[in-house]
Amino acid sequence: MKEGDSSLSEGKIIKLLSSFFKVPKKWIGIGDDTALLKYGDKNLLFTCDVLNEEVHFKRSYFPPYYLGWKLIAINVSDIISKGGKPSACLLFFNLPFSDRQWLEALMKGIKSASEKFGVKVVGGNTSASKTISLGCAMLGTCGKHGFIPRKGAKAGEKVYLLGTPGLSHAGMKLLKRYGYNSAIKIWKKAVMAHLKPEPHLYIIDDIITHFSPTSMTDTSDSLIESLVNILTPELDIHINHIPLHRKISLKEAMTGGEDYNLLFTSSSENTCGLPVSRIGSVVPGSGKVKLLKDGIMEEIKMRGFFSHF
Amino acid sequence: MKEGDSSLSEGKIIKLLSSFFKVPKKWIGIGDDTALLKYGDKNLLFTCDVLNEEVHFKRSYFPPYYLGWKLIAINVSDIISKGGKPSACLLFFNLPFSDRQWLEALMKGIKSASEKFGVKVVGGNTSASKTISLGCAMLGTCGKHGFIPRKGAKAGEKVYLLGTPGLSHAGMKLLKRYGYNSAIKIWKKAVMAHLKPEPHLYIIDDIITHFSPTSMTDTSDSLIESLVNILTPELDIHINHIPLHRKISLKEAMTGGEDYNLLFTSSSENTCGLPVSRIGSVVPGSGKVKLLKDGIMEEIKMRGFFSHF
Repeated sequence: MKEGDSSLSEGKIIKLLSSFFKVPKKWIGIGDDTALLKYGDKNLLFTCDVLNEEVHFKRSYFPPYYLGWKLIAINVSDIISKGGKPSACLLFFNLPFSDRQWLEALMKGIKSASEKFGVKVVGGNTSASKTISLGCAMLGTCGKHGFIPRKGAKAGEKVYLLGTPGLSHAGMKLLKRYGYNSAIKIWKKAVMAHLKPEPHLYIIDDIITHFSPTSMTDTSDSLIESLVNILTPELDIHINHIPLHRKISLKEAMTGGEDYNLLFTSSSENTCGLPVSRIGSVVPGSGKVKLLKDGIMEEIKMRGFFSHF
Repeated sequence: MKEGDSSLSEGKIIKLLSSFFKVPKKWIGIGDDTALLKYGDKNLLFTCDVLNEEVHFKRSYFPPYYLGWKLIAINVSDIISKGGKPSACLLFFNLPFSDRQWLEALMKGIKSASEKFGVKVVGGNTSASKTISLGCAMLGTCGKHGFIPRKGAKAGEKVYLLGTPGLSHAGMKLLKRYGYNSAIKIWKKAVMAHLKPEPHLYIIDDIITHFSPTSMTDTSDSLIESLVNILTPELDIHINHIPLHRKISLKEAMTGGEDYNLLFTSSSENTCGLPVSRIGSVVPGSGKVKLLKDGIMEEIKMRGFFSHF
């Protein structure tokens, strides 16, 4: 449930959607990383995400194998971020051409990712179009710990991040500038973070067991947007430490999208050495994200953020 | 799970998909109107379908309210055709513009259809794109009668059709030629069959109770393709009566798409006067559809069909 570089923001659509549709009380719906549906004693997670040519990728630099991988991975990431396990998905392809080699590479990527993350491809839909649009609708199951919402943080809790922010964005810039073959030689880790994101399925059970997160989201929309997404009107988040890569600026780390890192809040300390960074605290407030700068907590305004640094 | 006018046919994609993905035995997957998933004691139906600008509609003649209605209705139709009831859906919009009035009309259509058919919109995803692509992924529940597959017919059974074939295609031709305002005056029923299809939810329980269908599909891909879809290599279908509208030719009735009528097989006679037409019989054979012409059963070949009439 991620937004492209559209003039019509997801925020606006969600507002419109919310004004039109009432989700049953027993279901959590519009506005979280996935929907939560209850069928009998089963809690199911339901999400969809797309990769559109010219918005999320260009064919010139994005090998189809990785595109297939990423299509699965970004949906898996949404499900993991709610504490769930992916189970089944449908694919929908809008394609302007019929290039068997390209399509087979795409399928191989989908197969690799779906096998790695334990999700079964159970059907699909194809249609003609002018540009490539690849979609995936995915179902997952909720563990015994239940659904971890975006909005669940309480004052006094700690804010944790798993992963290096801004890496995917740095990779994308290299790919756009130099193309795949050169970019991969310049900085493989960043390029692969963009092409082949690895949702943190391997560690999610440990995080849940140790931290019992009260809120969680993936950082696909950038770290700053994800922080705003877990905020409520009665809370502020104070950020005092961002795990910066030496080649990535604070601005890039905060605003770079498509990282698929996990952001969560918890009352626990990281006593068992899990590879997560404590980046800040939840305090009583009024829905603001503040960042430690020269010893002072300064409010980050979303609109001014890009020009602020 | 419907195909647009693409050079890359759904058949080819499905073949590719099938060669890459193995669906668990307890699940029915690729190649039916919906997938069937088992979660505990719940059987869930899972499907997705899209409406793409320039492939499935043009903005010039398709009012957004009806587009919203149709997006829900075509997915509901898939679920009904498996004997199920729709429950929840996600929407994914690729949009090239931000026209609030157009979008609100679209939402109103989605709201009307989702309320009428009892399906909850639980989330969505938006992205920028060059042309409009509207997608919907829908979940439904399976009734106590279970999943009615495409492939389940047995020799000796009767073939039934609910609805008038070719009506939607006739409406589309009028819309393309005269635009909405004139077309609706010329032949409202056909135009509305195209713009605002009505899945047969009101009658599905009666059909299941009375006929216990052994196979079922909707006719979204045209009557002839739907007949082929319910065939197996050991059976032929003999068609001896198509309920033709006086303004629709046999060719249009057989090949016109997007009707969302129900095609099913059953060993029962229509003794209780349900408004379904018996159009033919299932006989031992070799995977052929034959049509009564001048007293003789003639094979219909898919490839030659358009030039055959």
